[in-house]
Amino acid sequence: MKIAKVVGNVVSVAKIESFIPAKLYILQIMDIDLKPLNKYIIAVDTIGTAINDMVIYNTGSGARMTELTKNMPTDASIVARIDENSIENL
Amino acid sequence: MKIAKVVGNVVSVAKIESFIPAKLYILQIMDIDLKPLNKYIIAVDTIGTAINDMVIYNTGSGARMTELTKNMPTDASIVARIDENSIENL
Amino acid sequence: MKIAKVVGNVVSVAKIESFIPAKLYILQIMDIDLKPLNKYIIAVDTIGTAINDMVIYNTGSGARMTELTKNMPTDASIVARIDENSIENL
Amino acid sequence: MKIAKVVGNVVSVAKIESFIPAKLYILQIMDIDLKPLNKYIIAVDTIGTAINDMVIYNTGSGARMTELTKNMPTDASIVARIDENSIENL
Amino acid sequence: MKIAKVVGNVVSVAKIESFIPAKLYILQIMDIDLKPLNKYIIAVDTIGTAINDMVIYNTGSGARMTELTKNMPTDASIVARIDENSIENL
Repeated sequence: MKIAKVVGNVVSVAKIESFIPAKLYILQIMDIDLKPLNKYIIAVDTIGTAINDMVIYNTGSGARMTELTKNMPTDASIVARIDENSIENL
Repeated sequence: MKIAKVVGNVVSVAKIESFIPAKLYILQIMDIDLKPLNKYIIAVDTIGTAINDMVIYNTGSGARMTELTKNMPTDASIVARIDENSIENL
Repeated sequence: MKIAKVVGNVVSVAKIESFIPAKLYILQIMDIDLKPLNKYIIAVDTIGTAINDMVIYNTGSGARMTELTKNMPTDASIVARIDENSIENL
Repeated sequence: MKIAKVVGNVVSVAKIESFIPAKLYILQIMDIDLKPLNKYIIAVDTIGTAINDMVIYNTGSGARMTELTKNMPTDASIVARIDENSIENL
Repeated sequence: MKIAKVVGNVVSVAKIESFIPAKLYILQIMDIDLKPLNKYIIAVDTIGTAINDMVIYNTGSGARMTELTKNMPTDASIVARIDENSIENL
């Protein structure tokens, strides 16, 4: 898993039917110093997040290990929301 | 998932039989500013797209989470089509 | 699998319910000379580790091949703890 | 999936028994302009290819989605053979 | 799969119980010219190898497609041993 910031959302013109209940967010990936990288990933929101939230996302088959996403063709999902006090000892 | 542009298609000389109903597209991958990278991936079209379309594709086992692709040896599939209004708040 | 150092922990504001028993650590990944890279991964601790420990972590579906993690949406887990005598012949 | 050229083959001294019927090829990976990169992957041939052929290969669990490879410990398989007319609209 | 050289082994202080019968090796990954890269991976030995051996390893769920590794949380396994005559036509 990695830390990222929610920077945009996608309302597609057409999509796979199983994606209809999914909210697709564009996440900007953070580096080890929690600074934004020039890298992004599109992930399904499984916990209720909003633009500018800091989150943790996973990738691969783990992205389908939630009630919402188990039948969706996703390869990335938001699985936690964090704030400035979430990261300890770094 | 990532955003990409459909830039070519592949009509192979020989292929695995389960791939016969598959349309294989060459996708040029976009960066976080939606500018084209020098990177590509070959993906199965699951929603009906055409050359020059902007799309979202997934990778890994998620690429087989659609009716069309469930028995195909694909590791990448197009799962949504987008346009200039699809990306919000970026 | 790769070698990493436990450099921080995450106490998220909200997370997927199956993650509640999970301890999420931030791991700084080591290179082949066991020097720290500017790369990190967030992994579930499955064996009992602490800040500053050197560990081995896995990624992908293998991260769910333990009793603790089998139903969690993790894509990375700590699976061994090592010390300065663990690496031989390098 | 990606495009690659078959540049070598491997006749190993010892291997996992399930790999005995497998032909292992060294593939040089092509970039988006179909020029060779300094990158390779070792893949199982599932369709009958030869040195110098241009092919499409997949990776991950998709590499085991063919009759030949379903029980092999492969993470990459050749799934199509192409020629200079295979790539259209690029 | 990729080609690598066995350059070290790991005797961890603590590990997931299913890893007890596993021999964990540090592999230095080779490039397409069979020269060592500054990259490594830790893999389970499934065929009997030793320090300095040249091997082929796989990654991902394929690493668990052997009798030895099927219940281990590995994401990389050694699946073949090669020597200077193994690579043909390169």
